[in-house]
Amino acid sequence: MQRRRFLTNSLKTLGAGAAGIAAAPFVSTASAQETITWDMVTSWPKNFPALGTGANEFAQRVEVLSHGRMRIRVHGAGELVPALEVFDAVAAGTAEMGHSASYYWRGKVAAAQFFTAVPFGMNTTETNAWIYYGGGQALWDEIYAKHNLKPFAVGNTGAQMAGWFKKEINSLADMQGLKLRLPGLAGEAMNRIGVTTVNMPGSEIFTSMQTGVLDAADWVGPYNDLAFGLHQVADYYYTSAWNEPSAILEGTVNLDAWNALPDDLKAVVTEAARASNLAMISEFTYRNAQALETLVDEHGVQLRTFPEDVMVALFDASEEVIQEQVANDPDSAKAYASYQAFQTLVRPFSDAGEFEYLRARAAVGA
Amino acid sequence: MQRRRFLTNSLKTLGAGAAGIAAAPFVSTASAQETITWDMVTSWPKNFPALGTGANEFAQRVEVLSHGRMRIRVHGAGELVPALEVFDAVAAGTAEMGHSASYYWRGKVAAAQFFTAVPFGMNTTETNAWIYYGGGQALWDEIYAKHNLKPFAVGNTGAQMAGWFKKEINSLADMQGLKLRLPGLAGEAMNRIGVTTVNMPGSEIFTSMQTGVLDAADWVGPYNDLAFGLHQVADYYYTSAWNEPSAILEGTVNLDAWNALPDDLKAVVTEAARASNLAMISEFTYRNAQALETLVDEHGVQLRTFPEDVMVALFDASEEVIQEQVANDPDSAKAYASYQAFQTLVRPFSDAGEFEYLRARAAVGA
Repeated sequence: MQRRRFLTNSLKTLGAGAAGIAAAPFVSTASAQETITWDMVTSWPKNFPALGTGANEFAQRVEVLSHGRMRIRVHGAGELVPALEVFDAVAAGTAEMGHSASYYWRGKVAAAQFFTAVPFGMNTTETNAWIYYGGGQALWDEIYAKHNLKPFAVGNTGAQMAGWFKKEINSLADMQGLKLRLPGLAGEAMNRIGVTTVNMPGSEIFTSMQTGVLDAADWVGPYNDLAFGLHQVADYYYTSAWNEPSAILEGTVNLDAWNALPDDLKAVVTEAARASNLAMISEFTYRNAQALETLVDEHGVQLRTFPEDVMVALFDASEEVIQEQVANDPDSAKAYASYQAFQTLVRPFSDAGEFEYLRARAAVGA
Repeated sequence: MQRRRFLTNSLKTLGAGAAGIAAAPFVSTASAQETITWDMVTSWPKNFPALGTGANEFAQRVEVLSHGRMRIRVHGAGELVPALEVFDAVAAGTAEMGHSASYYWRGKVAAAQFFTAVPFGMNTTETNAWIYYGGGQALWDEIYAKHNLKPFAVGNTGAQMAGWFKKEINSLADMQGLKLRLPGLAGEAMNRIGVTTVNMPGSEIFTSMQTGVLDAADWVGPYNDLAFGLHQVADYYYTSAWNEPSAILEGTVNLDAWNALPDDLKAVVTEAARASNLAMISEFTYRNAQALETLVDEHGVQLRTFPEDVMVALFDASEEVIQEQVANDPDSAKAYASYQAFQTLVRPFSDAGEFEYLRARAAVGA
């Protein structure tokens, strides 16, 4: 109670913003029942394009769908806890909820990485099918419950770009010794082919590129990268989303807070997450398209794909990294077995459907 | 009121099924407020895989998210109105809501076709981005409002198959004179290259193939096609989703019923639709993958792609059909201008992101 009162006082401005969502029709019902208020800490700057605004919209969905019975106050990175302490803060109950990406916690929960992005893994549609229908959610629940957390997919970036490079990459030799910002399993794979990777919050990338701490950096995709001005610190923008063919943004709920919710509010949180998952990939698709046009047409950014020897090396290294992790960690073994079995099942259909269509559309010049 | 009472009596069994969703926690609140009950007519057999069950799940979402204040009774094709009379029935208020596909109404509202599937058009992710962020929903609202309807995307099949053919297609000549079930703009395009297309409810396809009324038929994809046993009446299963790279399942709400809803229930319907949209494409992806495996491994179905001359002819014919429609119908011109502008914007990003990734994944043998 002390903590809650402190937060309420210290966050008056934010609170007013969140309260603005409670439109008139909800007031009478809300006041007749207990209103549940949660804090949600995030790994993004407050209102950061798509990621931060997506978290805000999720909170709005919960408030509207709960008829004002439940409010979620969204906090930017660093407001209550630093960007990369969201997992610990929600597990400990410092905040009831978090919005982040599971691969940030690989040092603590190795298996968490399979719930953001897997190098050369499934795309967004395949990943959602695994989470919702292929057993992914149940595994994620089981692994996170050990850390007092209930996870949800609350957004997806879609296929990302491979990152910004100051120099063009013409062969595997050009990758040697590069300092690259890239988290997760893909970062580990890059380490194996001679790159030195680091993880840092997105907000530190620009300065690190400017000062030479980094030679290259992956952030998200055109929309978020343009927002950080990464085209000002590197000329070459590499594609093929080998590193993050899909990246789930995770909502984490403190398990005690989750268990204390009545069933209907559990449904509200669950369905608001599902709706936000689709809303975010849809917004990313639109805004990335606009931003890529701006980057190429207005800023002269050079789009590139890695040469074949780099791709093959990255694929082999990714396999190696995943197999080592699976050998060393039972939860990783369990998560990857499920992930891989689903990918094996879904690929023939994806290839005959989505991939074959994209190929055919391009082939006829549509 | 007479009609409502009649329906209540005549649908006791169905009503009991729907009422089963109202779990104990909701009862006290629901009974303290007016409960709104809607009928939803559909173009699918009751509980038909993914399409019918998806409609059921949408109704469940509305009931749970409204805290039991709103119930939707789902009716299979032919229970209240025939499969292809959903649009008229909802417009007239015979039922408050429908679940169908907009291209079934092309004879009545030509522009409606752009809100299901466009030959050589956008895939599911691109289509959702257009609907939610690119102005698609506003245009759809405007066009349907003229028919006293408010539309929603309530599901998507994803990239479909091109259909079942009794004989293998080796050139454009083999298509001449074939009788094919294929609705929408794609059906029109097929007519232009020498095929005779018909539209009929899915439930009539099997018998029509058996009796020779049809030589070939497109229904949906592996999951739904397996359910109708189409592999028993044709050996060749053609891919590339040129005809339906994505197909929105539409929810239609009678505009008077919509306007009478309080704002919070409007939000419930809107967000339940969004959540169902993602749930259905996720389920289709999973079940199509399983069904394709069954069709190929257990039933020996032969997967094929059309030869190049057929694809080029279909692309040219599709362009011709769309341009003629656009020239003859102002609403079609408006809808297609928006659709096409969005596709032009999104393609460079989709090609660099999703398509390039699928290509790279296949190239390394992942």
